[in-house]
Amino acid sequence: MNNKINITEKLSLFDELWSPRVVAQMNKIQFKLVKIQGEFTWHAHQDTDEVFMVITGAMGIEFRDKSIELFPGEMFVIPKGIEHKPFAKEQCGIMIIEPAGVVNTGEAGGILTAANDVWI
Amino acid sequence: MNNKINITEKLSLFDELWSPRVVAQMNKIQFKLVKIQGEFTWHAHQDTDEVFMVITGAMGIEFRDKSIELFPGEMFVIPKGIEHKPFAKEQCGIMIIEPAGVVNTGEAGGILTAANDVWI
Repeated sequence: MNNKINITEKLSLFDELWSPRVVAQMNKIQFKLVKIQGEFTWHAHQDTDEVFMVITGAMGIEFRDKSIELFPGEMFVIPKGIEHKPFAKEQCGIMIIEPAGVVNTGEAGGILTAANDVWI
Repeated sequence: MNNKINITEKLSLFDELWSPRVVAQMNKIQFKLVKIQGEFTWHAHQDTDEVFMVITGAMGIEFRDKSIELFPGEMFVIPKGIEHKPFAKEQCGIMIIEPAGVVNTGEAGGILTAANDVWI
């Protein structure tokens, strides 16, 4: 049987930015914690929606036609195929919920592309 | 484009117990808020895992061989096919994450079976 997952405790276990850590899996969906600060890469995921949920701090997401801000307890569903660029002025802890195997930079690649399926 | 979802605000919009309200969908996965108090029905979901995440208050989940308690910021993945009985001594607000179409009482049915796909 699984153990319960304390999200804040799991977030305290790593410091690396833009580097998702998987904390749970439900069927083929993974729950990943990420610490972010600064600007990420413009990218899209052509095959899947993606959920962002803010745990600590605040983040923004730029789209080609608008920009949103998310605070703790807020979540957002990015539809598949939609270009987006996450950013955070100060360090922010988020949960990303998406199918296992999704690459953080989508089709864009680049230096911020992180290893996948790293559990914590 | 979607709007952002404030989880606490959505929880404040209804009072009915054991009656899931959908707040978001990612691919075929739904994010449902539920207010619970008292004891639910023993049941299992034969075709899917199920995630519980506590937002406010505290809940317990009985299994045939153990019992766990969950507090705000904690989550738990119930593996498919595993019998479980959620309970809460005082009112508790939770998020359930599972595929669209999953019936809250699984195969057990009964008076606590709620309407599905009710959005808020």
